[in-house]
Amino acid sequence: MITLASDFGSPYPAAMKGVILQHSDARLVDVSHDLPRQDVRAAAFWLREVLPHFPPAVHLVVVDPGVGTDRNALAIRAGEHVFVAPDNGVALPAARRLAADIDVFELAVENPASATFHGRDVFAPWAATIHDAGADTLAALDGVTPTDDYAIERFPDPVLEADSAEGEVLVVDDFGNVITNIPGRILDSVDMVRVGDLRVPVGHTFAAVGIGAKVVTVGSHENVELAVNRGRGDEAFSLEPGDRVRLSW
Amino acid sequence: MITLASDFGSPYPAAMKGVILQHSDARLVDVSHDLPRQDVRAAAFWLREVLPHFPPAVHLVVVDPGVGTDRNALAIRAGEHVFVAPDNGVALPAARRLAADIDVFELAVENPASATFHGRDVFAPWAATIHDAGADTLAALDGVTPTDDYAIERFPDPVLEADSAEGEVLVVDDFGNVITNIPGRILDSVDMVRVGDLRVPVGHTFAAVGIGAKVVTVGSHENVELAVNRGRGDEAFSLEPGDRVRLSW
Amino acid sequence: MITLASDFGSPYPAAMKGVILQHSDARLVDVSHDLPRQDVRAAAFWLREVLPHFPPAVHLVVVDPGVGTDRNALAIRAGEHVFVAPDNGVALPAARRLAADIDVFELAVENPASATFHGRDVFAPWAATIHDAGADTLAALDGVTPTDDYAIERFPDPVLEADSAEGEVLVVDDFGNVITNIPGRILDSVDMVRVGDLRVPVGHTFAAVGIGAKVVTVGSHENVELAVNRGRGDEAFSLEPGDRVRLSW
Repeated sequence: MITLASDFGSPYPAAMKGVILQHSDARLVDVSHDLPRQDVRAAAFWLREVLPHFPPAVHLVVVDPGVGTDRNALAIRAGEHVFVAPDNGVALPAARRLAADIDVFELAVENPASATFHGRDVFAPWAATIHDAGADTLAALDGVTPTDDYAIERFPDPVLEADSAEGEVLVVDDFGNVITNIPGRILDSVDMVRVGDLRVPVGHTFAAVGIGAKVVTVGSHENVELAVNRGRGDEAFSLEPGDRVRLSW
Repeated sequence: MITLASDFGSPYPAAMKGVILQHSDARLVDVSHDLPRQDVRAAAFWLREVLPHFPPAVHLVVVDPGVGTDRNALAIRAGEHVFVAPDNGVALPAARRLAADIDVFELAVENPASATFHGRDVFAPWAATIHDAGADTLAALDGVTPTDDYAIERFPDPVLEADSAEGEVLVVDDFGNVITNIPGRILDSVDMVRVGDLRVPVGHTFAAVGIGAKVVTVGSHENVELAVNRGRGDEAFSLEPGDRVRLSW
Repeated sequence: MITLASDFGSPYPAAMKGVILQHSDARLVDVSHDLPRQDVRAAAFWLREVLPHFPPAVHLVVVDPGVGTDRNALAIRAGEHVFVAPDNGVALPAARRLAADIDVFELAVENPASATFHGRDVFAPWAATIHDAGADTLAALDGVTPTDDYAIERFPDPVLEADSAEGEVLVVDDFGNVITNIPGRILDSVDMVRVGDLRVPVGHTFAAVGIGAKVVTVGSHENVELAVNRGRGDEAFSLEPGDRVRLSW
């Protein structure tokens, strides 16, 4: 199985699928091609939330603002999973969630046909090759070299106090839910929280409040999420990725 | 075969796919993850138009504004098809189009990991389980209980007269075509219709009128549709879902 | 293998998948359902860039502003590939890129259930039939007639001079990169180019310039592309499909 994730939108991902299918009979599963565009950190967050739910697979991940520069191409092995991705940290959080120990390899890049579409010309062929060889034999493939020099993507740490927390908006999902880096456990025994100057109920579900009302909840990612029941939290709270968020109670 | 439909956008559906593939080798087919967001009735309309074209399958349907509340999880059997969906009526019209008699079952929900992502934690595992067991043995599975107490989703009835019809906009498609609840047969022998104050030709095809001109047609769903040849009907007629529409001739 | 491409958005493509799967066990691969809407020429460009990367397949292509009129339905054979598409030229450039010689066939259209959804009622069943029969036996199928009377889609020719080029914007991709019809080779030894009144560096990659800066590059399609490093070229250059572009150096 090869999963595909990118920030390419449409129709570039189809060229990657075509190239893979020229080489391999692997099952292909689209993860998303609408990852936050050119935003390595936000993409890394989503991949960490989504990819660990898959069975062992080769995960092709292309969010690559440095395409065509001398940044490396990597294969990252985490248990029986292998991530094929640019060396910008985008796949690291997902890999680390899957396995405490990971092995990182540099992949040879030889005269790709384009300087701006390594998804098609570099990463897709490598994903097919690694899939067909198997994760076990990855280290023995021509052009694969172990490395411990690679980019790391870190999510910002929130500041947690006894009666407050300060953090940042990591992403906004397609419902408009505002996902922060503040761990949900801080709200375990809190019923009402101040978000900036607003007093907002803490709810277990969106429907804990009336339709159109604001609610602070803990998302499936276990972080604090600012939402509106059947509405958009980003608009109601006027927040977007990168914005600071202060909670107090 | 398991089909997947939701209003999740991206990338949440991938977590559902991963969970299913942990359990099952089923073929997965994406139906749509851009169903009208949080809009059970509009989603039910689209699913009724699309899912009956599939061969027998398990249809995972998650449009679920009540996620985390005590609404039930259901399996609905219609012939050899099984719908796995929240108990809010979203899958009923599709099921009833497939079979006059349907069997409805309540699915046990045991401590899902999240209160806000039952698509991943409740419905996806059930879809995999039911797929692998087969529609025939559904009633014998642990945690499956027949029920006849479930939510129904009804589309509003239009008012039909000899020379007029009054109805409602059900959905607007991605071309901007305005799809109403008025049955197309009322226009069988009508060449020109008044939409509010506008006189608009009735056409068999979009191209029956000039480029940019308004046309009233009968869509593939057999309802009256307000369109513009190579343009957007919703903008030209200033209509959106839920709006009233009056036709006369 | 059957690939699917359309300008349908969501959820209409699922009805095509369902119909195909009623008839065939073919592997289905989504190419794009967000091709430029009702824009045959722009869709033809994307399909030419993407579909030739696939192994031999039946390519179902539905961008069809003339749906329901008397335009023909075609099967176009290019080597071991077959395109099933309306007769408006949308699949021709992709077919011609795959093979110098192509065979074109008219497909019988018999009382489709709808006048506005031939993707579901005409093209999808034909794609399944042709897939299961095989490209080799296409000519022998009932309802398949050779033809040499079919629509051609031509991209506009740029005007190339020793120190300037004038062309047109063909498409804007989802990153906002502005893709022209001007061949990239004209910039082989040019470091700085004038786009209208702006002086812009020519870069091998987007990252050849600072974040937020304009760059002229050669895309994976080998045409000149106007871009912004980690930004949107269409906004920075105020250009959209169909606009004229003049380069000089």
